[in-house]
Amino acid sequence: MAKEIERKFLVSEGSWRSQKGTRYRQGYLNSVKERIVRVRTIGDKGYLTIKGLTVGASRLEFEYEIPRPDADQLLNICEKPLIEKTRFKVVEAGFVWEIDEFFGENQGLIVAEVELESEDQEFPRPPWVGEEVTGDPRYFNSNLIKNPYKVW
Amino acid sequence: MAKEIERKFLVSEGSWRSQKGTRYRQGYLNSVKERIVRVRTIGDKGYLTIKGLTVGASRLEFEYEIPRPDADQLLNICEKPLIEKTRFKVVEAGFVWEIDEFFGENQGLIVAEVELESEDQEFPRPPWVGEEVTGDPRYFNSNLIKNPYKVW
Repeated sequence: MAKEIERKFLVSEGSWRSQKGTRYRQGYLNSVKERIVRVRTIGDKGYLTIKGLTVGASRLEFEYEIPRPDADQLLNICEKPLIEKTRFKVVEAGFVWEIDEFFGENQGLIVAEVELESEDQEFPRPPWVGEEVTGDPRYFNSNLIKNPYKVW
Repeated sequence: MAKEIERKFLVSEGSWRSQKGTRYRQGYLNSVKERIVRVRTIGDKGYLTIKGLTVGASRLEFEYEIPRPDADQLLNICEKPLIEKTRFKVVEAGFVWEIDEFFGENQGLIVAEVELESEDQEFPRPPWVGEEVTGDPRYFNSNLIKNPYKVW
């Protein structure tokens, strides 16, 4: 089973803004790690995702597409605040970066993730990449609900 | 919006056993009443149901059919114990009765529900109908998990 290797950085303003972003809204019907139930809208689509605990290398995860109007109503009963962000995909020197610009209770936060093939793989840092925050729990989505950026 | 009027009774052995039943297994990914997430298998089908709080006469409720193998795996991560029962549908004098015979942690419990058109509608009581338990919270599915019949 492939393991995802990602590194996460803070982001400043820059050329990535010329890209067109996709709006994400997400919330949790349960954020307990044994049985996470996430509702998400991506653009005009809706999703319900359920994740169990990681056991060894595998994690139980199921995702179902649901009607967008259902997802909107389900977001109303999720734990608050919701995570609201626009995601931009930027390719720099062959590396795909996902840049998340947050809104709502996490307004002001912009982070970028790059996917790598190994933990020590070299990659050029675009000029808008700032401090590395890989592994910093404050930036986990689940913690951006409990302790949003606006109150840091 | 139509209101369901149901009355619930304890059940003894009887002629209803000649019917063929359908096996139900269900569990909860969240049993908090603001955002209930239920996983259920009925025969060879699987379902995911989400319910919000009752506000006035309406309650947010969505049900999605999911692959039965997904439902089986999701039941593994639900709160324990699961509710396991066989449901029998019995028609007596034009009234439809649903009889639930429980297994697992609720082994020994058999209840029957009849749906009525009004709260004071008269109906004949089949010989296997015992004490009325309508509205008794011990018999709610959510309480049969927290406080199963075997420990009463």
